[in-house]
Amino acid sequence: MAVADVEAVILSVGRDLPFLTGYEAMPLERLTLLVIPRGEHATLLIPALEAPRVDPLPDVFTLLPWTETEDPVALAAKVIGDRRRIAVGDQMWSRFLVELLPHLPGATYVRANGVVGSLRLQKDAAEIAALQAAGAAVDRIATQLQSGQIPLIGRTEAEVSADLSARILAEGHEVVNFAIVAAGENAASPHHHPGPRVIGPNEIVLCDFGGTMAGYCSDITRCVTTGDVDPEIHSAYAVLKEAQAAAVAAAQLGATCESVDAAARDIISAAGYGEYFVHRTGHGIGMEAHEDPYIVSGNTTLLEHGHAFSIEPGIYIPGRWGMRLEDIVIATERGPLSANNADHDLALL
Amino acid sequence: MAVADVEAVILSVGRDLPFLTGYEAMPLERLTLLVIPRGEHATLLIPALEAPRVDPLPDVFTLLPWTETEDPVALAAKVIGDRRRIAVGDQMWSRFLVELLPHLPGATYVRANGVVGSLRLQKDAAEIAALQAAGAAVDRIATQLQSGQIPLIGRTEAEVSADLSARILAEGHEVVNFAIVAAGENAASPHHHPGPRVIGPNEIVLCDFGGTMAGYCSDITRCVTTGDVDPEIHSAYAVLKEAQAAAVAAAQLGATCESVDAAARDIISAAGYGEYFVHRTGHGIGMEAHEDPYIVSGNTTLLEHGHAFSIEPGIYIPGRWGMRLEDIVIATERGPLSANNADHDLALL
Repeated sequence: MAVADVEAVILSVGRDLPFLTGYEAMPLERLTLLVIPRGEHATLLIPALEAPRVDPLPDVFTLLPWTETEDPVALAAKVIGDRRRIAVGDQMWSRFLVELLPHLPGATYVRANGVVGSLRLQKDAAEIAALQAAGAAVDRIATQLQSGQIPLIGRTEAEVSADLSARILAEGHEVVNFAIVAAGENAASPHHHPGPRVIGPNEIVLCDFGGTMAGYCSDITRCVTTGDVDPEIHSAYAVLKEAQAAAVAAAQLGATCESVDAAARDIISAAGYGEYFVHRTGHGIGMEAHEDPYIVSGNTTLLEHGHAFSIEPGIYIPGRWGMRLEDIVIATERGPLSANNADHDLALL
Repeated sequence: MAVADVEAVILSVGRDLPFLTGYEAMPLERLTLLVIPRGEHATLLIPALEAPRVDPLPDVFTLLPWTETEDPVALAAKVIGDRRRIAVGDQMWSRFLVELLPHLPGATYVRANGVVGSLRLQKDAAEIAALQAAGAAVDRIATQLQSGQIPLIGRTEAEVSADLSARILAEGHEVVNFAIVAAGENAASPHHHPGPRVIGPNEIVLCDFGGTMAGYCSDITRCVTTGDVDPEIHSAYAVLKEAQAAAVAAAQLGATCESVDAAARDIISAAGYGEYFVHRTGHGIGMEAHEDPYIVSGNTTLLEHGHAFSIEPGIYIPGRWGMRLEDIVIATERGPLSANNADHDLALL
């Protein structure tokens, strides 16, 4: 907080709060707010009816339950006092910030990510192990997909998505975060919502799925084909696979995030598909499915031991087909460590 | 917007955006933002890779896709222009508001709820039918619970919660919103998180569950006992049942929300349990599990045809037991309409 010149951090919904306290705010209209004044004891404002859910940590915070007829924002302003450089949790609902603004005249606001994010960026050994365990769980599902154990032809994208979701839970995740299934031309939409389209023979099917296991996220993308496809799909996939491997290899300590992005992008661009790689190469991952560091042009953050992120280049030809290949990678002193090790080829089912 | 003296509404994550446009923002770090300048055409900023997900509505908004290396907040500020009275969507992530603040010097902010909320408050016939259909679905599960078809004794709260969740999906909901199972002394925590505690004989078990079906939410609470329990539980439940029915009966057009709260609270207080009824009597419900109007002391909003809300008084004795009885009720010209009609007694299993 001193480095960021911040006098108070306020955290509500999101992962910063459970990272620091073990308690996760309910995403509801009743405000839960941890106020951390610089150099002083923290206070956790909590709806009175949720107070029994909190494991007290008196060394870390004082619990301040508020009742149904109190104004929690006014209470928060009182706890913040005359502090005016405020760092706000990224995912706190704006309604509370909007209500807080007039209570703190002259205040300036920055993202709490600048304070708490740096603590979460470097995963320790237990966190790396958790990411690997979650990665191994979705690897098993990817292998089931690639070996034909998950039927595709004749089922809708939505049905296959539900099947993947059930397997994500069965493999030990607490929560399914997403299970994208996109067939043929639908795969050209990177965040396609699986729908009623029936998967047919002779097309490419993109599956991107993950969940949260013991508090840490998995995320993997593999593509398969349901028979013979346009030879261009095979030649493009060879480019994609080379690009993905190059970016993984580039993820060395001291490399910039943007250089990892460039390692994949240069290969895809050289093959003439640059304009069809419409997103960054990856996102950080940990307690959240997307967090720092982002593997994107313009991000000059240097990789350090314990940074964890996806490497997921893609090629998307509107109206025709799309493909993406994704692993979670952890930068370590011994080189890039892949949390995903399912086969990287385009499996023919 | 004229009534609220607002020059622009900005909407991101949350239900206001799909209510107005049919498109729901992904809750991710890439900004999706609908900017509605007063009296002018709206603009939907969208991550380029998510643009294919949007069904265009050119009469309603212009699509403005932004690419991975653009600054979406700067783009948003440009679209907002010199407007300075800004209404902000309740659930928009604070990180975007924090980043927007310095772009709009001298601006003042209010909650978009003051503009869009009034449109969502009065459910039309199709919305009322959707709430009734979702209510009937959870009624069927409540009846299964009350008739002993959902085993309790010997299972953990978490197992029963997973069972309820599976039934919520099987009954046609797209999403499970919550499935609270709280046994014995755990029921004294109104938002108890179902855990490893094994349910035994001769205790009260509180089940509060709901999901989203065809875009509208269900929410019901019923309590059962697994054998003989302390006679005080039965006498308190009689008070609770009378209080809940009184609040439903009080939910007439023109009544204030706080008078409905008082109808339940007065009966519970007269029986000596006032201090153990630690929450408001209810919350509005519709596309969100919790929304306006809140049935709480201090809310002088008058009920109108189509207002939908829970009526859910509770009594919670710390360390001993808890109970709650909840229906969703819609205020109509023909009197209070209950979307839940499962038996209201304390079933003995």
